[in-house]
Amino acid sequence: MSATLAELVARFGGELVGDGSRRVSQVAPLDRASADDIGFVAQSKYLAQLAGTRAGAVILPPDARDASDLPRILTPNPYLYFARVSAYFNPVPRPPVGVHPSATVAADARVAEDASIGPGAVIGAGAVIGARTAIGANCVVGEGATIGTDCLLHANVTVYHRCVIGDRAILHSGCVIGSDGFGFAPNEGAWEKIPQIGRVRIGNDVEIGACTTIDRGALEDTVIEDGVKLDNLIQVAHNVVIGAHTAIAACTGIAGSAKIGRHCTIGGAAMIFGHIEIADGTRISTNTLITKSLPRAGTYTSALPFSEHEVWQKNAVHMRNLDKLVRRVKELEKKIGELENKS
Amino acid sequence: MSATLAELVARFGGELVGDGSRRVSQVAPLDRASADDIGFVAQSKYLAQLAGTRAGAVILPPDARDASDLPRILTPNPYLYFARVSAYFNPVPRPPVGVHPSATVAADARVAEDASIGPGAVIGAGAVIGARTAIGANCVVGEGATIGTDCLLHANVTVYHRCVIGDRAILHSGCVIGSDGFGFAPNEGAWEKIPQIGRVRIGNDVEIGACTTIDRGALEDTVIEDGVKLDNLIQVAHNVVIGAHTAIAACTGIAGSAKIGRHCTIGGAAMIFGHIEIADGTRISTNTLITKSLPRAGTYTSALPFSEHEVWQKNAVHMRNLDKLVRRVKELEKKIGELENKS
Amino acid sequence: MSATLAELVARFGGELVGDGSRRVSQVAPLDRASADDIGFVAQSKYLAQLAGTRAGAVILPPDARDASDLPRILTPNPYLYFARVSAYFNPVPRPPVGVHPSATVAADARVAEDASIGPGAVIGAGAVIGARTAIGANCVVGEGATIGTDCLLHANVTVYHRCVIGDRAILHSGCVIGSDGFGFAPNEGAWEKIPQIGRVRIGNDVEIGACTTIDRGALEDTVIEDGVKLDNLIQVAHNVVIGAHTAIAACTGIAGSAKIGRHCTIGGAAMIFGHIEIADGTRISTNTLITKSLPRAGTYTSALPFSEHEVWQKNAVHMRNLDKLVRRVKELEKKIGELENKS
Repeated sequence: MSATLAELVARFGGELVGDGSRRVSQVAPLDRASADDIGFVAQSKYLAQLAGTRAGAVILPPDARDASDLPRILTPNPYLYFARVSAYFNPVPRPPVGVHPSATVAADARVAEDASIGPGAVIGAGAVIGARTAIGANCVVGEGATIGTDCLLHANVTVYHRCVIGDRAILHSGCVIGSDGFGFAPNEGAWEKIPQIGRVRIGNDVEIGACTTIDRGALEDTVIEDGVKLDNLIQVAHNVVIGAHTAIAACTGIAGSAKIGRHCTIGGAAMIFGHIEIADGTRISTNTLITKSLPRAGTYTSALPFSEHEVWQKNAVHMRNLDKLVRRVKELEKKIGELENKS
Repeated sequence: MSATLAELVARFGGELVGDGSRRVSQVAPLDRASADDIGFVAQSKYLAQLAGTRAGAVILPPDARDASDLPRILTPNPYLYFARVSAYFNPVPRPPVGVHPSATVAADARVAEDASIGPGAVIGAGAVIGARTAIGANCVVGEGATIGTDCLLHANVTVYHRCVIGDRAILHSGCVIGSDGFGFAPNEGAWEKIPQIGRVRIGNDVEIGACTTIDRGALEDTVIEDGVKLDNLIQVAHNVVIGAHTAIAACTGIAGSAKIGRHCTIGGAAMIFGHIEIADGTRISTNTLITKSLPRAGTYTSALPFSEHEVWQKNAVHMRNLDKLVRRVKELEKKIGELENKS
Repeated sequence: MSATLAELVARFGGELVGDGSRRVSQVAPLDRASADDIGFVAQSKYLAQLAGTRAGAVILPPDARDASDLPRILTPNPYLYFARVSAYFNPVPRPPVGVHPSATVAADARVAEDASIGPGAVIGAGAVIGARTAIGANCVVGEGATIGTDCLLHANVTVYHRCVIGDRAILHSGCVIGSDGFGFAPNEGAWEKIPQIGRVRIGNDVEIGACTTIDRGALEDTVIEDGVKLDNLIQVAHNVVIGAHTAIAACTGIAGSAKIGRHCTIGGAAMIFGHIEIADGTRISTNTLITKSLPRAGTYTSALPFSEHEVWQKNAVHMRNLDKLVRRVKELEKKIGELENKS
């Protein structure tokens, strides 16, 4: 696949500057691009990236119109434009339509005619698979689960019974949707299981990373709203609600019944306590533990700066006596005050 | 399925107050319950939850006998009672008995007649599957592994060769039992693999969460005792022993040869060093790193309170000079002492 | 399988002391060994481990020649020697050569004649499986992926399209190689997917733990060099490079485009920021967050020592006022100076 700059502008907008017949066939970072590639500079402050590039064309912000002699496309959001050109040049290969002979589809499952059910996949009784959706090899979709249209389940995904997934979802390998929440009642030193009778409900345009786990609700549903993006190895406990268009980086854990707002961004390995509420638009830093509700948007952090080991150890040990240190300072302040009064 | 309160009390005990012919068919939280639902109040301090409920009946602690006009059941542990009623109304659907035609069962595997082997499941040579146990779709049980009776392996579970799982285990999708421990001997700048020849031995009544990994022992076995409950995405390294009825929340890691006591509760994203021993009944907080043995039960913590990012940064940077700060305070104390002596 | 000490020395080197006809058939820790077992002491400082052992033979460092009356083998690296004897006594069972009838192999995939494709495994179009490589049950190898020779993919591994894995790799169950990196361009409050068109390239002699996820590159490849060992539940983001012979413990996360050096060791649950570079031979402690490049090898830490909960809380709260505390100390120093001048 290839396109001239004029064709790209016709398709994706933007202002063409220079030779519109320049033909490109792939996207590339500027420092590795060749004459068939188109690169981009996200913002004017990164224009130095243009130096020495061998790219055939470049996508620039409008205020960088004259920063290059290359044929170029000006657009307010070069990164987004680049993403779209990349998607155009690199369409996701969709597996062949139809049910692979090695798949197991329950007699009463409803699979769209133009859906694709891969080798070894298992579709449970009463499950629904929407139009143009591809279920990857060895995926398992439980009884009564519903998958929308234009979804892509990569290989080895598990969706438990009765869970609901919207349209255009992308689920990566190893992710698990709808496992039981972690609920037990203590009984004479042992734990007795609380049935987890809720579901997981996932909106439209959601992407879920590899080996990310989303537990079904205990009584009500766990809810992932439209446009949420979850990275790999994230734990979402039962009854959590994640608001629309929130993005969460890998290794993060969200405890039961937490309610995350819309348009939040949460860094990797963050941990969110259960039964708390986080305001729309909140940002949580990497490695940060959120222990109570955040009613106001803002950026929140509890991650420590590292040091060389010996230096760190010498400092960190005082954490165990910080309260004493504060009291010693208070005592000093008192004594100084007395001395000042005397003198 | 439905039951009158009188039937519930006949089955599960407790004291009936009010109309025993009241029929309910589901459990629900009080604020969402309808007339067919039974709700509960765990402890008297939560009795405010009764306000405005539309539940048909309620489970209460004995000291709340008069807190509601609803038909009610009094019991010392309402949460546990509720769990049992929920399990009664929501029985776990067991897949059909027998081996699915698409499963692969080794000729010399011993599968109980009333066990269920799901589509695409693979049972290795010499493996044993106990009575009434269900092996989910696309699970793989390795050579010589033993799974007890009444177990439920959800889809896409992997049990490595020779591992042993007791009765009534619940294993969630994506969990891996018996992968090699992380053992390598350094040899001239490279790593040489230490064979991991132990197994994983899991007791009775254990539940293991989605994508949790339990490594086999290097020489001896990794052991998970009876009644242990593990949440999702937990790492249990080789030769770890987890004592009976210990519960561990998601994203926790336990390093090699750690010995966790019985009846411990470990918060999410805790990290436990290897080769240490933790007393029975210990509680470890979320995000806490345990670096040495805990010979006495107690609650242990090393998690920091978060702040707004700018505030946090201003404070956290001093961690790198805490030792200097302590020495400055000591110096001040000395000087104050001298000044006090003089004055 | 069994061997005399003389046979072991002929095969693996070392100096035989005592009865070379002593026959052993297994390795064991000294405190559990019986007469058929051979044990080892890694270094002379651990010689106390010999007390009371019932082992039939022992591997010792040369300076411990006289520490035991047992038939013994002297070698500078007893642990390595022990690993090799263990590998000899415990060969990895290789599954039968050939394609299992329940596997699905694309017509144009190239599978070596002596490779093993397990039950339910799926090999995509154009994929290449090298000589003597075993693909475990229900694994999925995507279109155009290449797996080298002598590899062992345990059950339920997923390798995405076009990824490349070298020779002698060991991939544990649930690991995912080549899932999409987490890349999205913000667009009017929503996220638009950046196609991830790079691959994952893995060198020779790499081992990857259970449920570890390695994302494919956005434009260029994610690279795991020769001899790297990754434990379970590790996240490797897009465009990361991990240098040869680096070992990383479980639950660690590495953000996008980080470049980890060669011969590094990284403790469990470490988190590494994206777009940073870490020098060869660096050691990073458990639970440590690395926020910027480490141009010099060393050991780096940011993990805190735990305390009993109440003690910890009393101390940790001051983290939120550390900057104020520092300013109070500075103020005290100033006042003391003034008082000293006066007196």
